[in-house]
Amino acid sequence: MLNAATRHAGCHNVVNEINLALTRQDAEVTTDQLNKEALHAAEIPYPGHTEIFTALTHAQRSCMLQYSSEVRCVFATTHLPYAEVPAALTKERILETLELGAQAMRRIRRSEPQIGVLGLNPHAGEHGLFGKEEETVIAPAIEAARAKGFEVEGPIPPDTAFLPTKRRATDLFVCMYHDQGHIPLKALCFDEAVNITLGLPIVRTSVDHGTALDIAGQGKANPNSLYEAVKLALKFI
Amino acid sequence: MLNAATRHAGCHNVVNEINLALTRQDAEVTTDQLNKEALHAAEIPYPGHTEIFTALTHAQRSCMLQYSSEVRCVFATTHLPYAEVPAALTKERILETLELGAQAMRRIRRSEPQIGVLGLNPHAGEHGLFGKEEETVIAPAIEAARAKGFEVEGPIPPDTAFLPTKRRATDLFVCMYHDQGHIPLKALCFDEAVNITLGLPIVRTSVDHGTALDIAGQGKANPNSLYEAVKLALKFI
Repeated sequence: MLNAATRHAGCHNVVNEINLALTRQDAEVTTDQLNKEALHAAEIPYPGHTEIFTALTHAQRSCMLQYSSEVRCVFATTHLPYAEVPAALTKERILETLELGAQAMRRIRRSEPQIGVLGLNPHAGEHGLFGKEEETVIAPAIEAARAKGFEVEGPIPPDTAFLPTKRRATDLFVCMYHDQGHIPLKALCFDEAVNITLGLPIVRTSVDHGTALDIAGQGKANPNSLYEAVKLALKFI
Repeated sequence: MLNAATRHAGCHNVVNEINLALTRQDAEVTTDQLNKEALHAAEIPYPGHTEIFTALTHAQRSCMLQYSSEVRCVFATTHLPYAEVPAALTKERILETLELGAQAMRRIRRSEPQIGVLGLNPHAGEHGLFGKEEETVIAPAIEAARAKGFEVEGPIPPDTAFLPTKRRATDLFVCMYHDQGHIPLKALCFDEAVNITLGLPIVRTSVDHGTALDIAGQGKANPNSLYEAVKLALKFI
């Protein structure tokens, strides 16, 4: 896998960074944006940075945390076609995502997080009327998390999760798919959110935006997400 | 169907309202919240008000418009399990939804709307990497709409559609599923959004929230969405 990854010249830097970080304790890497189509065109067998870091650090489990002052989300699935999400959602994956998110929140805030787990379907299925995943996998994951002592609410109807009162009372949302958390994150706090890969033996934070090649070299890009990503990495020390 | 609907005592009022409205030109009905589980328990064969109004007015096509000052969305699908959305999305349904939304925006604002059509998959599929629906049904619907003279952008990556600059430049978003539009609507403008059923021979507006039985009778409920629903109905005259 290392050979495949290094086929792309730009990947040398990432591989070097990861190897250097692995030799040190409490090392952090902050990455800038990445063009996923370029990665694919170079035949690198990972959809993004998150998956490269997971593979090259030999992490057993990982997930994405999007962190901002207004909303914080971990994702049970990320860069997956919409239609493939239901089959990828298992009780174990939701519980793992919740645990990784809760551990990170404890390190960042030094307190026990209030966790909200979202449903998958409209109105969180409305007791099975609009879908069953809440009953078959999400509620069982919530029960298992409560049995381990986590403070968890859910399954929350996805559209009411991010109401002002609800989002202020919730330290961490566990989202079922990419856009469920990314839509409110970008609507409410674009240019401020930071992407963190949880579950790695090193700390990896990243900007929360794409390459914006249409404004490249024009001096217009806002570096705020990169500043926030470096600042957040330092909180893990 | 009328008999089934009238089995539920509360439905008499809705049926009467619809029949009365149908006898008048330019009639409007504004509905308050509805408990969908109660409707189901009463064996009424519709998931909500929208479907009751569509059936009893014999509308050939209809869709939901959520209207607020900050964001306006029409929905190609609404109260459908997450997993059933891809099969329900067709070029024809997306185009029909866009046309109904554009007609309503012209009546409300008296100008040609700028329309944004969202993708279904993360990053709008990133050219097929994370799903194909953008290429197979959404882009063809956009092309057909442009050929009819509509001003349309898309498929837009769903998570960037509601960025402040993008949402202010877009009069109407065409959403593929319930939570894609309801999450940002409620995060950004709860208590202000109005639900309108488009495509009926009468005007029907409604509040944008549920029954909140946990605060019933306590004098805490905010009536703002109901006020806005009545005000918006009057704009159609």
